[in-house]
Parts: sequence; C-alpha cells; structure tokens
Amino acid sequence: MKIHVLLSPLNADELYFTGKTTVVIDVLRATTSIIYALNNGAREIIPVNTIEFAMKVSGNAFGGSTLLAGERNAEKIDGFSLGNSPLEFTEEVVKNKSIILYTTNGSRAVVRAKFSENLYICSFNNLPGMAEFLVSRGNDVTILCSGWNGMFCMEDTVCAGRLVSELMKAGPDSEISDAARAALILNKPFSENYLDMLTDTEHGKLLKSKGFEDDLEAACRFGSTDIIPVYSGGTIKAYSG
Amino acid sequence: MKIHVLLSPLNADELYFTGKTTVVIDVLRATTSIIYALNNGAREIIPVNTIEFAMKVSGNAFGGSTLLAGERNAEKIDGFSLGNSPLEFTEEVVKNKSIILYTTNGSRAVVRAKFSENLYICSFNNLPGMAEFLVSRGNDVTILCSGWNGMFCMEDTVCAGRLVSELMKAGPDSEISDAARAALILNKPFSENYLDMLTDTEHGKLLKSKGFEDDLEAACRFGSTDIIPVYSGGTIKAYSG
Repeated sequence: MKIHVLLSPLNADELYFTGKTTVVIDVLRATTSIIYALNNGAREIIPVNTIEFAMKVSGNAFGGSTLLAGERNAEKIDGFSLGNSPLEFTEEVVKNKSIILYTTNGSRAVVRAKFSENLYICSFNNLPGMAEFLVSRGNDVTILCSGWNGMFCMEDTVCAGRLVSELMKAGPDSEISDAARAALILNKPFSENYLDMLTDTEHGKLLKSKGFEDDLEAACRFGSTDIIPVYSGGTIKAYSG
Repeated sequence: MKIHVLLSPLNADELYFTGKTTVVIDVLRATTSIIYALNNGAREIIPVNTIEFAMKVSGNAFGGSTLLAGERNAEKIDGFSLGNSPLEFTEEVVKNKSIILYTTNGSRAVVRAKFSENLYICSFNNLPGMAEFLVSRGNDVTILCSGWNGMFCMEDTVCAGRLVSELMKAGPDSEISDAARAALILNKPFSENYLDMLTDTEHGKLLKSKGFEDDLEAACRFGSTDIIPVYSGGTIKAYSG
C-alpha cells in the first residue's frame, strides 16, 4: 500500500483526486460532526463549498426533511438550524434527516476531493475502524487534511499521522511519502493525550474562547464508533457493506 | 517575536506577505544555489517565476553580463548556461555576473513573497548567521518553505524547524504558530545528521538518481557562510549593512 498525506486542500486541485482513495480529516470539527450525525441516525450529509449553494440546495431537494448546518469563523450562520458542533447533532435532532453542511474547511475539502474513486470521512472517533476498513480494501490511500483557511493545522496532521501509524501496523511494508512520514513523526509526541494536544492548538484555543470547549473532548473520543462515512453522488452516508 | 512557518507557497497568496519579514527556504536546491552564487562573488540573482520571463529578462537588462540558470524536473533547461546545482556556481563562472534564476519551487516562492517588507534567503549553509541577523532585527518572522510542486517537502520543513529552534534559543518567549511548532518537532530527529535526512527524502532520491548526489552534501554544510541574501527591487544581493 502507498500512503500519502496532503497537509492542505490547496496543495492539490480537484482533478488530482481522480481515481484515488481519499480520506478527509477535519478534527475540529466537520468530519467529527459528520460522524456524530451519521452515528445518531442522520440519513445523509450533503457537504457544500459555498453558503449560497447550501441555501439553494435546502429549498427543494431531499423531500423537505433537510437541516442547514455549518459555521463561519466557528459560529453558526444566520438562518441555519445548526452550527458545526458535534454535540448539536443528537439523535433527537438529526434522525432520518438530510443535513446540508457548509464549513470553512472540512465540507470544502470533501467537495474538492469529489472526483476520488473512493472518498471516506475520518476523525479520531472512527479512526481504528477506518484503518481496518482501508486495510481490508488494500488500495493506495491519500489522506487529505482539511487544514485551516488553506494552511497547515496541527490536529488534522496528527490525526492523519495516527491513521498512517495504524495502516502501517497492518502493512509494515507500506510505501509512505515524505508528508506521510512527517505526519507520523508529528503524531508520536501526542498519541497518549489527544485532548491536551487539541487544547493547545490555535483552532482549539479559538473554539474554547467561543464556548466550544466540550467539542474538544468530543473530538478525541478515540474509536468511539465503527461508522465508515462514504461520499458518493454528492452525499455522505454510512457504509452499509 | 512571533514565528510562523508556511509549509507551501500555495498556502498564501501574494498579498499575504505585505509588510512581513519573510525568509524563503529551498534546500534542494534554489536557496542553497543562491547562497553559493553570492558567496562566490555573483553580483546579484534575479529570481523569475516563468521560463519565458527568464528569456525576456536575459535579452536586454543588466548590461549583458547575465547568465541564465535554472531547472525543470531537476535538469538544466535547454539554452540555459547553468542548471540549479550549487556546485555549478563557482567563482570562475559567476563572479560579477547577474544570474537570472528559474526553478520549479524556490525562485517562484521568492517571487510569490515579493511584497514582503523584508525578504531573505536561507538554507542550512547560512542558517546560524541568518538566525542571529533576524534576532538582531527583532521583527516577527514568516518562514516560507518552497515545497515541491506545491506540496509539503521534508527538507525545507526540517530546515525551517532548525531556524525556529535557533530563533527560540535567543528568544525563548517567542510566540510560535502550530506550523512553526510542527517544523520544530520535525527537525528534532534529524538535527544530528542532515545528510542522512536529505538522502532519504523524495527530492533527495530524485537528485541522486539524476547524478546530483554531491548537491546533497553541499546543501547540508551547516553554517558554512555568514552571507545574508536580501531580495529588493527584483534582485537578490548579499546584505552589506
């Protein structure tokens, strides 16, 4: 298996992903929220890359049972039902709903990678199951860190490094790129305490200052679910075999 | 002092650099070659971001004493006098010459950062002197890794990490971004042997396969010169106080 990591969506254009197996990570908070939502019975997530498109899609599509969710500068967007806190996506709120999701980094990273042959969603919450799933499939893997406003972000890279580490446990002969090796090195000092790492990141501090401290704890419940979210035909659904 | 690292030029647009003190790194090989050239008496380096512009500039400007240098896919460009190997930029070849330089990553990174208030060129060769110089100036510093085709590259990030480390020795209270912290962590396992690190990178392997093995050794002569290359008004010259 060849394993590569992209540290920001800006490092590659849309066509780069054609034919690839891509795993998108946005620990704070989009991919964590997607996993919470699907785990709590949401029918599907529709990631979009502009707020305008979110508004447009919400009008007619998906039989009316849609919810608009997302953030700008970490805060809920005016007129949207939900923000981007994983803790908002409770069973009561999301069960059987289609959720249209716009976020600064994560939803746009998913849309950027839409030409991938296989496109999966990962966070610390489903990481062990995701690693096992990827190993069983055996394809080369590109891990896409959503980053922060086009820049590097620590938590996504550390999470990517942990995924590389788990993939290499199953396939020690895997061929890893320099970026994958860097992610692996960056995961090491933090792998015993992801909450401390998150609390100390730029994004973690911002969320804390805006009252979203509990999101950090939610984001590092390592292996709390086995759900494998799969993007196909414009929506993300739980993999059902 | 605030210290930030950009892991790829694509992470920021040209206007991002306005008013900043920026240090560009392209260990393999542009910034290493620029430092060798100036150290060997080149009058100036004119970095360009397209081959067409290199051809155009070479025709009339700079009084005829110009040399075209650069590479595409690590190899010398047809019609150019020099490639991008630091070992080509000997005193005999470059003394008092203006060198127009086009390279895949480094020269373009310099041009991208051209609106910086202060713009310097760094490699392992001049790193200790550069750190000392930056500390004496006291400005916040943005370190720009040239990367490789828009992607992360290990050697530039490790070199950036070493620069962060030296800056922090002088100013332990410096405020560092997540990306600067990541570079710092990545430098650690390699700081005793940069040649091994270079030999093991994707770019190092490519250069070795094309017969440029000696360039790796030249690129990691740590602190071999005190030269501070400064970009101003379109050209890079040695800082003269």
